[in-house]
Amino acid sequence: MAVANKAPTAPTVSMDKLVSLCKRRGFVFPSSEIYGGFNGVWDYGPLGTELRANVKAAWWKDFVHSREDIVGLDSGILASPRVWEASGHLQNFTDPMVECKNCKHRFRADHIDLDKNCPVCGKKDWSDIRQFNTMFKTFVGPVEDDASVAYLRPETCQAIFVNFRLVQQAMRKKLPFGIAQIGKAFRNEITTGNFIFRLRELEQMELEYFVRPGEDERTFDEWLLRDVEWLTRLGVRREMLHLYEHPAEKRSHYSKRTVDIEYDFPFGRSELWGHANRGDFDLTQHKNASGEELEYFDDESKEHVVPYVIEPSLGVDRTMLVLLLEAFDEQPDKDGIRTVLHFHPRVAPIKVAVLPLVKKDEGLVSKARALFDELRSELTAQYDETSTVGRRYRRQDEIGTPWCVTVDGQTLEDGTVTVRDRDSMEQVRLPSAEVLPVLQRRLRQPWSRPE
Amino acid sequence: MAVANKAPTAPTVSMDKLVSLCKRRGFVFPSSEIYGGFNGVWDYGPLGTELRANVKAAWWKDFVHSREDIVGLDSGILASPRVWEASGHLQNFTDPMVECKNCKHRFRADHIDLDKNCPVCGKKDWSDIRQFNTMFKTFVGPVEDDASVAYLRPETCQAIFVNFRLVQQAMRKKLPFGIAQIGKAFRNEITTGNFIFRLRELEQMELEYFVRPGEDERTFDEWLLRDVEWLTRLGVRREMLHLYEHPAEKRSHYSKRTVDIEYDFPFGRSELWGHANRGDFDLTQHKNASGEELEYFDDESKEHVVPYVIEPSLGVDRTMLVLLLEAFDEQPDKDGIRTVLHFHPRVAPIKVAVLPLVKKDEGLVSKARALFDELRSELTAQYDETSTVGRRYRRQDEIGTPWCVTVDGQTLEDGTVTVRDRDSMEQVRLPSAEVLPVLQRRLRQPWSRPE
Repeated sequence: MAVANKAPTAPTVSMDKLVSLCKRRGFVFPSSEIYGGFNGVWDYGPLGTELRANVKAAWWKDFVHSREDIVGLDSGILASPRVWEASGHLQNFTDPMVECKNCKHRFRADHIDLDKNCPVCGKKDWSDIRQFNTMFKTFVGPVEDDASVAYLRPETCQAIFVNFRLVQQAMRKKLPFGIAQIGKAFRNEITTGNFIFRLRELEQMELEYFVRPGEDERTFDEWLLRDVEWLTRLGVRREMLHLYEHPAEKRSHYSKRTVDIEYDFPFGRSELWGHANRGDFDLTQHKNASGEELEYFDDESKEHVVPYVIEPSLGVDRTMLVLLLEAFDEQPDKDGIRTVLHFHPRVAPIKVAVLPLVKKDEGLVSKARALFDELRSELTAQYDETSTVGRRYRRQDEIGTPWCVTVDGQTLEDGTVTVRDRDSMEQVRLPSAEVLPVLQRRLRQPWSRPE
Repeated sequence: MAVANKAPTAPTVSMDKLVSLCKRRGFVFPSSEIYGGFNGVWDYGPLGTELRANVKAAWWKDFVHSREDIVGLDSGILASPRVWEASGHLQNFTDPMVECKNCKHRFRADHIDLDKNCPVCGKKDWSDIRQFNTMFKTFVGPVEDDASVAYLRPETCQAIFVNFRLVQQAMRKKLPFGIAQIGKAFRNEITTGNFIFRLRELEQMELEYFVRPGEDERTFDEWLLRDVEWLTRLGVRREMLHLYEHPAEKRSHYSKRTVDIEYDFPFGRSELWGHANRGDFDLTQHKNASGEELEYFDDESKEHVVPYVIEPSLGVDRTMLVLLLEAFDEQPDKDGIRTVLHFHPRVAPIKVAVLPLVKKDEGLVSKARALFDELRSELTAQYDETSTVGRRYRRQDEIGTPWCVTVDGQTLEDGTVTVRDRDSMEQVRLPSAEVLPVLQRRLRQPWSRPE
């Protein structure tokens, strides 16, 4: 894993400010807060849940539904322990751990400087470094013994390899093709931190793209390019992204080549989207361990092939963190500070808010409710009638709602409403009936973050 | 839990036939099949993944996005163990277990007749019954000891109670309101079985609807009615559904009243959708255990209220099983048997297939590809050009695709295409440009299963 120790290219929002907004507005809550919290796990509030679902839906639409060569999978978090034996995880999915013999605190040996004193107690009395397996273990069935041990998957991709033939045959896929999966993975990290960056419970969007041996290097480069472009289309500034080529000695046991798309987080440059050329390592391991056929039969050449696989692996939580960091903005204005989240409309939790100018005018409210009902049949929408329109705009800005529709006196006369744009704050009048199609069109148009 | 021991009202497809179709066509695969399987866990193949996503999206749209009084949550599978202590799960989330002393097999004592001999070895030598806690246990952090024990959540709802105040305040919700969550839950069942019916890893769609004390009984009845109706709108026959009122001695420790919506599975009538009146049990338990405020402050009466909660709790996997069972049909015809899945179009994995009549006609293929590109920008679509149109229809029928669009010679002349309906097998000619809006309209219309 890449170490977060380089300086960011540009100043961004402080993590504290972001964490506070996320809690206050219902994006991200500390897990089990009433019980003093639970390290390495966060709960997503109502708006975080929507943002998260939109990130996953955008990835699925662009990489699965829009492509004929990629299909999905949704496998169990639990699986036979033999999967992890064959994949090498039982042996190799470890982090180096060191203990301060004085205060008994444990650290990741590659994340601290062992020439210095213990950052907790200030003494210098380090244990030997030992390898700590970061798979979570549990017991399945009514007996708790060695025979019943199972693991929570530390990555979603192994089920893709194990199911390779079942998927390929059911879907009649020909090389090259990919299998995509979104799902939870668990890593018993020695240390956690930086909000939703390094988690013990995380969610991955993984894609295994199978190609003929020899086509792997070119395919690798294509995915890297495609994935950088995908991030920028979602509004991530290109200059915040960097490619990091792992030197051979830092690569995982399965990888022939690893390149991370890194992002300049406030706490340093670090991994966002890993890309690995896993070659035929996994399919060969599972084939040998299970004795089952995991090859691809090429109809044309009449040959059995063990495909090579290119893996782009992206974290849902890290993507959310990047989108939140990129979106966050504070703009001084005459009333103080306007806090705004410039989300791409595709991922914004709420697409549109409907605001009747006056709460007590029955005619106005009935118009506003009718428009709200129409809009929310297709888009996530909020109806807000409390306090001044200015304050209601502010509330929507702070949760990143791209459009606010105000229903006012003129609506009763000519049927038009005001549509306010979150980014430019410009307002245009439109016939009420045009609002939904206009917003739907704008949701499909390219969008870029305002400077 | 309700015991599956009553006769179904109507004959349905055999489970074997369904399991076989699900594997062959990429709906459901046995977990870790190349390693001999893994009990109580299944992997969803490409089409199962789409069906599953559609079931969850339909529930979320109808119960969260379409309602102003319900918001979502997406919490961790892991949480502080104090959550499970306070909720009573450490003490009470147990099943009665009995062991055959002769062959050492273990059974759920309430699922077998202890007056009879062991169904495995044929001897009769039962142990005493003991309570077995079905929460999966793991260890969090770099030390494996009692202090690091955590549990995989056995139900998603506890995080809703623990986060009650954070959600209520962030979203400024007033009673009555609900918090919904979809997510994995884990139960270390003593025995598993009946395909995706009784699982160790399952997914729940849970809703906690908070009301003022005294409004709970009426609200309970409203949800029961609403949920039966939701199932029938998705195409489940009303006569296959039954209400089962749990007698007091069979209710869970937290419940004042429990009514299951049961379904006539091929293996017997059993629980599909549980409804519980949890009263103020959970909020009170967490309030007392944590010492934190978990009340609702009523602005009008200036009083603190511990709300009562009504819980409709539905399994994603069981819903999929019901939809598959309801959809499955075999129709004898002149070519043998037509196997068809009559899914509601909303949940069908693939909405439309585009089939060029002739594969080698460049003009035709280019028209078909253009239409396919247009359709798949909005709907899940497949393009299929291999073998006869008749066989291609059959393939789509078997995976439940509601519409097939055929592009033929006449298309090149007048721009029209044929749209074939899966259920009626009727074909209508339409201008190519009308296909997308027509299908989108039909997706929103009421649908019912053909007799």
